[in-house]
Amino acid sequence: MAPTPSASFYPKYQTRWQSTKSLLCVGLDSDIAQLPDCVLAEANPIWEFNRRIIDATADHACAYKPNLAFYLSDGLRGLEALQRTVEYIPEEIPVILDCKVGDIGNTMEQYAVSYFDRMGFDAITLNPLMGSDVLKPILKRPGAFAFALALTSNPSAEEFFLSAKMAAKVSGWINNYPLEQLGAVVGATQGGDLKRMREQLPGRIFLIPGVGAQGGDLDCVLKNAADSAEMPNILINSSRGIIFREKTPRFAQAAGLAAKELKGLAIV
Amino acid sequence: MAPTPSASFYPKYQTRWQSTKSLLCVGLDSDIAQLPDCVLAEANPIWEFNRRIIDATADHACAYKPNLAFYLSDGLRGLEALQRTVEYIPEEIPVILDCKVGDIGNTMEQYAVSYFDRMGFDAITLNPLMGSDVLKPILKRPGAFAFALALTSNPSAEEFFLSAKMAAKVSGWINNYPLEQLGAVVGATQGGDLKRMREQLPGRIFLIPGVGAQGGDLDCVLKNAADSAEMPNILINSSRGIIFREKTPRFAQAAGLAAKELKGLAIV
Repeated sequence: MAPTPSASFYPKYQTRWQSTKSLLCVGLDSDIAQLPDCVLAEANPIWEFNRRIIDATADHACAYKPNLAFYLSDGLRGLEALQRTVEYIPEEIPVILDCKVGDIGNTMEQYAVSYFDRMGFDAITLNPLMGSDVLKPILKRPGAFAFALALTSNPSAEEFFLSAKMAAKVSGWINNYPLEQLGAVVGATQGGDLKRMREQLPGRIFLIPGVGAQGGDLDCVLKNAADSAEMPNILINSSRGIIFREKTPRFAQAAGLAAKELKGLAIV
Repeated sequence: MAPTPSASFYPKYQTRWQSTKSLLCVGLDSDIAQLPDCVLAEANPIWEFNRRIIDATADHACAYKPNLAFYLSDGLRGLEALQRTVEYIPEEIPVILDCKVGDIGNTMEQYAVSYFDRMGFDAITLNPLMGSDVLKPILKRPGAFAFALALTSNPSAEEFFLSAKMAAKVSGWINNYPLEQLGAVVGATQGGDLKRMREQLPGRIFLIPGVGAQGGDLDCVLKNAADSAEMPNILINSSRGIIFREKTPRFAQAAGLAAKELKGLAIV
C-alpha cells in the first residue's frame, strides 16, 4: 500500500507555483488507442508512455492530472499503470485524480481510502450533486483536497444544473469550506463567466480544463480567472495538446516542447 | 476482454421479474474490512466472499449491484474480484455497477468502454449533473442502460440540488430518453416523494437504495413506487442487510436466508 502523501496539496501547489512559475497542469488522458506505436509493444504501454511523458514535462508542470477513465478502460493493466504513474511523479509535484466522484457515507469513505490513502493522490475532482455528505471523508483527512465541479463548458451543461444561476449557488456552497481543502473546476468559457466565478470565489484554487483541445482562450483565462500575480490560484489543464502532440518515437520530446511553450504563454 | 452482454438490461430485467417475482437487488458492497475471517486467508478474499454470496442468493435475486468503491479500495486485487464477480453471476441475472459516473465526451466514452464492453455490466448508475452529454455514449450502445440519480435521501441531498423541485426537473429530463435505456435512482424516503416520482416517471425502472441499513420502509416503497402488480418496475436494493447478516463461516447461508426473506416480503 502506498503511503499517505507526505505533504498536503495546498502548500504543495503554492510551493510548486513559487519555484516554477508554472500554471500548467499536464492532463494524463493516456488513451491507449492514441498511443504512439513505439510504446505498444511494451508490457504496460500506458505506463511506459506516461513515464516518458513525465520525464519530458516535469520541469514545466505545476501539477499532473491523470483521468481515471483512460486507465480503467485498460483493465488491471491500466490500474497498475495508474498506480505506477502516481508513484513515479516527483514528490514535489502535486497529482490530481480526475474521477469526478460523488457518493456518500461508507461508499465515499472507501473512495477516499482508495485515492488518498492507498494510491497516494494529493487531490481528486468531485461531483457535488449529493451535497456536503460527499465532502465529509475528505474534510476529515488533514491535507486531502478536492476540486468540486462548479461550472463546465460542455454543450449540455446548462440543461438544468450548471447554468450561471446554479454556478452562483455552487460557489456559495464551496465558500462554506476551507480554501486549503476545496477548490473549483471552472470550465474555460466566456470571460464574463470566469470573472464572475473569481469574484464569487476569492482565494480559491481553480482547475481550468478546456484550454487547448476544447477551444478555450488562454489570454481570456489568465485575465479573468487569476487571483493575483503573486498567487494566481489557477491550474490550466492541457492534455491532448501536450501528450499527443506527435505520434512518432519523438512523442516525449514533442510533449516537453509543448509543455514548455504553454508554460511560457501562461504568464500572469 | 469480456464479451459485450448478450442480452440488454431492459428485457433481462423484465424476464427475470417474470420468472422469479423477485424485486430484490443484492448490493455487493463487499467491504474487505467487514468480511468474515474465514475468507480472509483466500488469495482474493472479496472474490471468494462474492462467489459464495452469489451461490447462496442467486435464486432470490432479481439483480446484483456491486459498488465500485469497495473494489478499488482493495487495489488491483479488488478490480480483479470485480471482474470475476460480473463474469460469475448467471447470465440471466442483470448486473448493475454502482459507480455514479458523470463525465462527458471522450472520457465518458472510455467509462462506457470499461464498464459495458470490457467488464460486461448490464447497467451502471449515473450522475446527471453535466447534462445529456453524459448519456451520449450510453444511448449509442443498443441495450446499454443507466440509472440516473434523481432523488436521494442522504441528509445533505436538499442542500442545493436534489430537492423536490430539482427532482421534478430531473424527472422531466429523464423523460426525454427511452425507458429501455434510462432508469432512475430514487432514494427511499417519504411515501409522498416516492408517489410523486412515480407519477412523474411512469413506466420507468426505479433503483431504490436505502431499504434496510439506511432505514427505508419496505411497505411504503411497495405501495408508492411500484408501477403495477404486472410490471412493478422497481428494484429494491439491500446490501449490508443481506451480505453481512452474519460474520461466521455460515455467512453465505445467512445471506441466502435474508435474501429469501426480503424477496418474500417485497410482494406487490
